[in-house]
Amino acid sequence: MGHLKFKINSEYKHMRTGVLEVPHGKIETPNFVPVATKATVKALSSEDMKELNSQILMCNSYHLYLKPGLDVIKKFNGLHKFMNWNGPIMTDSAGFQVFSLGFGMEHFANKIGSYFIEDQKQSKAKIKKMAKVTNKGVWIDSIYTKEKILFTPEKSMRIQEALGSDIMIAFDECTSPYANKKYVSESLERTHKWAKRSLDAHKTKQALFGVIQGSYFKELRIKSAKFISNSDFDGFCIGGSLGKSKAEMHKILEWITKEIDPEKPRHLLGIGVVEDFFNGVERGIDLFDCVGPTRIARAGLVYVSPECGGTVKNKFRIKVTRTEFEMDKKPIDCTCNCKVCQNYSRAYIRHLFKSKEYLAYYLTSYHNLHFVLNLMEQIRESIKTGTFFELKKKWLSNNI
Amino acid sequence: MGHLKFKINSEYKHMRTGVLEVPHGKIETPNFVPVATKATVKALSSEDMKELNSQILMCNSYHLYLKPGLDVIKKFNGLHKFMNWNGPIMTDSAGFQVFSLGFGMEHFANKIGSYFIEDQKQSKAKIKKMAKVTNKGVWIDSIYTKEKILFTPEKSMRIQEALGSDIMIAFDECTSPYANKKYVSESLERTHKWAKRSLDAHKTKQALFGVIQGSYFKELRIKSAKFISNSDFDGFCIGGSLGKSKAEMHKILEWITKEIDPEKPRHLLGIGVVEDFFNGVERGIDLFDCVGPTRIARAGLVYVSPECGGTVKNKFRIKVTRTEFEMDKKPIDCTCNCKVCQNYSRAYIRHLFKSKEYLAYYLTSYHNLHFVLNLMEQIRESIKTGTFFELKKKWLSNNI
Repeated sequence: MGHLKFKINSEYKHMRTGVLEVPHGKIETPNFVPVATKATVKALSSEDMKELNSQILMCNSYHLYLKPGLDVIKKFNGLHKFMNWNGPIMTDSAGFQVFSLGFGMEHFANKIGSYFIEDQKQSKAKIKKMAKVTNKGVWIDSIYTKEKILFTPEKSMRIQEALGSDIMIAFDECTSPYANKKYVSESLERTHKWAKRSLDAHKTKQALFGVIQGSYFKELRIKSAKFISNSDFDGFCIGGSLGKSKAEMHKILEWITKEIDPEKPRHLLGIGVVEDFFNGVERGIDLFDCVGPTRIARAGLVYVSPECGGTVKNKFRIKVTRTEFEMDKKPIDCTCNCKVCQNYSRAYIRHLFKSKEYLAYYLTSYHNLHFVLNLMEQIRESIKTGTFFELKKKWLSNNI
Repeated sequence: MGHLKFKINSEYKHMRTGVLEVPHGKIETPNFVPVATKATVKALSSEDMKELNSQILMCNSYHLYLKPGLDVIKKFNGLHKFMNWNGPIMTDSAGFQVFSLGFGMEHFANKIGSYFIEDQKQSKAKIKKMAKVTNKGVWIDSIYTKEKILFTPEKSMRIQEALGSDIMIAFDECTSPYANKKYVSESLERTHKWAKRSLDAHKTKQALFGVIQGSYFKELRIKSAKFISNSDFDGFCIGGSLGKSKAEMHKILEWITKEIDPEKPRHLLGIGVVEDFFNGVERGIDLFDCVGPTRIARAGLVYVSPECGGTVKNKFRIKVTRTEFEMDKKPIDCTCNCKVCQNYSRAYIRHLFKSKEYLAYYLTSYHNLHFVLNLMEQIRESIKTGTFFELKKKWLSNNI
């Protein structure tokens, strides 16, 4: 067991609020973990993340292992000093790249929100898998040199130790949504062996979360939840395919959360969008992470609240580059008190996109993360005061 | 005459310190004017420019006329509200584009620091001029649609009025460094007529600066200095070619400053680099502007002071992307107290460049502007205390 304390402060049906404490600080839950893949949240500085009251960041083992490489990070005694972020850091295990650079490429699948969808643009291209799974580990190609590198549970632990994260994640195989039950079942045996090997290779006091896989197969998800919960992990991640509809995702979360130790934190990997936060929290999820808020920001998609026209249908976002905003003096979101909405108009931000100015990415990324972090704060408050369902109704009601 | 007060507080040989007061604030001189071409200093926000203690910004009439267009800017009653910058703004007249999109393209010339140099990469390409000069005005192609637009002194005044800048610049023809005396002489007549037409078309209380042209021809520079000084401008800009060496530039500045009203502010257009600041100030220049600090930043070139190895020869800069900085835990500049140097290492910034992360541009642009603005503050202080030549020696001595 690593240095991690998790105290649940209030419960309301399956929901809970709590405080997760790790060496670099405290995280109020439920919460959102902004993604700093290559040791920076894209377009934002560590000072910005502090200003945004982000309580934790997630960095990527695969990418940082390749660039700048562990020798550089070790020189700084880990990521915290390297990227000047003194708060908690979580690192993934490279397990997602087993999928995204493996079957994800062959199946032309991309993870968007809670779904895996077929990417129409790529579906006619002949794409070669960049990851090959064996029982020993996974050979993953470098995206830079095409060199093949063997990632194993032991190697993943060694990388995450060097990164010095507060929370590490066990090495797993994230299966494709198109994988059949036979494949997922075999893969799950491997993932469970790798979970055990991750625990055995884990020598530091960093916290270590196990990953529950099993795709959308009830029997396998329950099996995985039981196995991971009975292992000596500090918390749980839920990974892989969560089905083909929101309803299916909700069922899968319910199968899992029934089986796992309620005293330990639960992280839903790579999720999500506004409605997922409500539906995940409602089913006992404590943490979410997703590149979505910053990725869509760079495409000009910015979050708006229900008061400003945000709905489930429009995914609570407007495309600020549209002609209709050319003369719009209003802020992105009329209810938002972030510095972007206090100081800049839709018209100005649209102009920055049309002029290809970097400031466009900064302002929209900042706003979108503020929006999501602020929503999580509202959700925490609503659980404490027993008003979660009112808040959920305000956000999702007209749209379900 | 527009709303502008210029008070000279101290003089030392040809140098002076002063305060330039315009409706949106005060500018201590000598000073540097960061360039916000398209209503943003590239990669930085207005809040950053305030934090950097930038006292004025320069925006571009040609670019903002094309995008977002005057209708959008008028909706905000000018640039200040549009870009959320409450300090002084200076706007150029589109006169520089007469050169950069005109003979500049035909002559493959680019302005770098105080020189016009031949661009070797482009010199074999067949480039079509995008500006055609007539006595009435200049037909300049839109860089977006290739539509031909007639820029005249009257139109330039109308654009700059809509932009609402504190300081406007008269419309002029910036001649090519390769233009012969006959061409420059004819062009100068035109520029002087356009100066008069700019004054006649000037209906607001915005300050208006005239532009002294004449290339490197003594007779023409003196003629222009006298003409512009005898016209009813609030200040002077020195534009166009400043010769083919630093020594030639110094002579040109001396010819001009002898002839112009010493009570009015003097702005050296599009300059420069560290040594130019010292040499310009020494010859009575009050203001400088240049895209250099942010442009080189985006190429990974960052300023370092003499204490950290900066010399005239290396142009006081290091290329932070070089392998030698891979493990370098030091800040960009060991003497710098900007937030980038306080918080981030060369190794981290190198990693951001190698990973193509936007934050690289932010951090280096911020540092470079801090460096230049801080140097100008040191120069002001040295004039007040009579230690200018000691400061100059510290910076330039080993290198001249």
